[in-house]
Amino acid sequence: MVSSRGVRHDSMRARNLAVVLATIDRSGPHTRAALAERTGLTKTTVSSLVADLLEAGVVTESGAVRGGERGRPGVAVSMSGHRVAALGLEINIDYLAACVVDLTRAVRLRRVRPSRNRDSDPAEILEGLRDLVKEVAAEAEAEGLRLAGAALAVPGTVEDGVLRSAPHLGWRDVRVAGLVDLPVDAVSVKIDPFEIDNEANLAALGELWFGSREPDFLYVSGEIGIGAGLVVEGRVFRGTFGLAGELGHVVVVPDGPACRCGGRGCLEVYAGQDALLGELSSVGELVARLEAGDGRALEACEVAGHALGVALTSAVHLLDPGRIVLGGIFAPLYRWLERPVSEGLRARLAQMRGRPPALVVSATGGDAAVLGAAGLIVQQILAEPARLLGL
Amino acid sequence: MVSSRGVRHDSMRARNLAVVLATIDRSGPHTRAALAERTGLTKTTVSSLVADLLEAGVVTESGAVRGGERGRPGVAVSMSGHRVAALGLEINIDYLAACVVDLTRAVRLRRVRPSRNRDSDPAEILEGLRDLVKEVAAEAEAEGLRLAGAALAVPGTVEDGVLRSAPHLGWRDVRVAGLVDLPVDAVSVKIDPFEIDNEANLAALGELWFGSREPDFLYVSGEIGIGAGLVVEGRVFRGTFGLAGELGHVVVVPDGPACRCGGRGCLEVYAGQDALLGELSSVGELVARLEAGDGRALEACEVAGHALGVALTSAVHLLDPGRIVLGGIFAPLYRWLERPVSEGLRARLAQMRGRPPALVVSATGGDAAVLGAAGLIVQQILAEPARLLGL
Repeated sequence: MVSSRGVRHDSMRARNLAVVLATIDRSGPHTRAALAERTGLTKTTVSSLVADLLEAGVVTESGAVRGGERGRPGVAVSMSGHRVAALGLEINIDYLAACVVDLTRAVRLRRVRPSRNRDSDPAEILEGLRDLVKEVAAEAEAEGLRLAGAALAVPGTVEDGVLRSAPHLGWRDVRVAGLVDLPVDAVSVKIDPFEIDNEANLAALGELWFGSREPDFLYVSGEIGIGAGLVVEGRVFRGTFGLAGELGHVVVVPDGPACRCGGRGCLEVYAGQDALLGELSSVGELVARLEAGDGRALEACEVAGHALGVALTSAVHLLDPGRIVLGGIFAPLYRWLERPVSEGLRARLAQMRGRPPALVVSATGGDAAVLGAAGLIVQQILAEPARLLGL
Repeated sequence: MVSSRGVRHDSMRARNLAVVLATIDRSGPHTRAALAERTGLTKTTVSSLVADLLEAGVVTESGAVRGGERGRPGVAVSMSGHRVAALGLEINIDYLAACVVDLTRAVRLRRVRPSRNRDSDPAEILEGLRDLVKEVAAEAEAEGLRLAGAALAVPGTVEDGVLRSAPHLGWRDVRVAGLVDLPVDAVSVKIDPFEIDNEANLAALGELWFGSREPDFLYVSGEIGIGAGLVVEGRVFRGTFGLAGELGHVVVVPDGPACRCGGRGCLEVYAGQDALLGELSSVGELVARLEAGDGRALEACEVAGHALGVALTSAVHLLDPGRIVLGGIFAPLYRWLERPVSEGLRARLAQMRGRPPALVVSATGGDAAVLGAAGLIVQQILAEPARLLGL
């Protein structure tokens, strides 16, 4: 899309700050001379931009000496993990989680707190989240980290910063942003202090930044609900209203059992956590039964795997993902799901696609969404470092 | 995505040419003074940019006088329909088509030629296409139009300019680009002389630029095969390998009848042209039977509409389209499909989405793909007018 404004000097400086920072982030420490060569900017411009980035605390002079492309030694500039950091938060059906990630994407803190959130009062749960934030923020401050923003993962649909519907929480139209009193220095820190997004989208980003780092995949989030986040060239595809990726309600059997969504025969009816567990109380218990060769547990995985194969066939035809990553509770169950799912994909897709997309297990486990939330803020800082400087 | 290069002067000029041209294209004729106000560029810069655009033949001084925002009269600069034009081409299963569209998006020429392309020899069909191109190019030249590029719509999957697979044509891995000898002045015209894409994607763009002009929708192309093109904010979503939108092979009934794709119970089995027509020989004949109240014809539409409702439910959950546009043969059958399709969508989606996306009939009819092909070239010229000037 061509912008309707011409390029002018001030926006050029902001953009060039981002160009220099992206270069350091992607290809490691560089001297100022090497940065000039890589970006095509003059050395004087690069020096001035680096001075700004040092002031903002997003880069550091590592002291390490490294030859530029012309062989001259110099001080290397690298991403700083010492000052600016991002807060990731998650409300899920049976827990609250928080993590702090610095600009080198090192995970500095993680906290998970069990919480009975099913059919809950938002105000009460958000009070619990506020306590968790206070605790984590204090710990981050004690390590000298300044939280430049926070993002929250929720098990539901989000539109314009509002949690529209989280059926398992029993929440509708909850504006979470105003409720969490994030101790961010909002005057000097101009990054948006709060983002909220669907847990499957953020888990997909968690997988991208902290897991496999592959740029193209469909992340399948198996929880009580089943969601999916499609990443194409490193970006989440969100659809028109931000509601894309509702894999759990793809139709598997048109006249199948009723689903809580009002439809029939949706994937969730066959492969959601409730269907998989039956009368068992935890995924750990299911895994124990599977390892013991329990017939009912094996049959539940077979049914879920078959349904996943059908729904993912439709998803591959419509979304064209690079690969399929099974995450959430599907990760510990992967050993038993892998065969029925990949058999289904092969049988239905082989003729049209040569090879169906590879099926793999998530590398991030249960932390994907909360890590993705923090990573989203890191990404915003990288995209617009000028905002940290008030430009 | 932040580019790895800084912004420099020469790329700035190319970009500003596009900014000025986009402003004229979007909001009509403007004086140079008004263009300067709208774009934030200086009047001197705008005058020099307009001189280049006049030389390239993409704008014209209409002679019409119109006050700038400061009230000063001046010569209005508008898009030119007189010199530069784009060629749209289509190979479908039973016809070849061509059209010429000028930069004001006026359709200057259209030609459709019946052709038996099912299970055909590519070389033979492309020879026919070459004849059609020669004829149309000569007519365009006689009108003083210079073809700045061509795009071709094909009923199959395309990757890197190669038609990978068009099962109804019986074609595999055909490189069409080299076979059509397009009489484009390739030395002075630096626009890519040839683009090739899937007919559903191009039909979606045809609907965008020549039909409803809504920026967000899923275009459903009913032909012998069924495809879909998702448009989000005016852009086609293509997936990772350019294979997204294969709606025809979304699973409707997992153990349904075998489909030619190797799967079972795909949408095409229930709602493709062959399923709808049965023993009838044309869509016109089917419409006549439907109008006469023929039971078998009505039943075929009921089955197709039900299957479309199921497949589109899955598509809405995964793709999140703004609206659903039924095109191709579904347009003349819309009267009979509308009720079963929208009933299916409502029953399955109402609870999760409040209202399912609106279901509407295509405004472009059978011409959507060939118009979209020409429109794609117009869009390329608008995005990079500098290339016409050899910048």
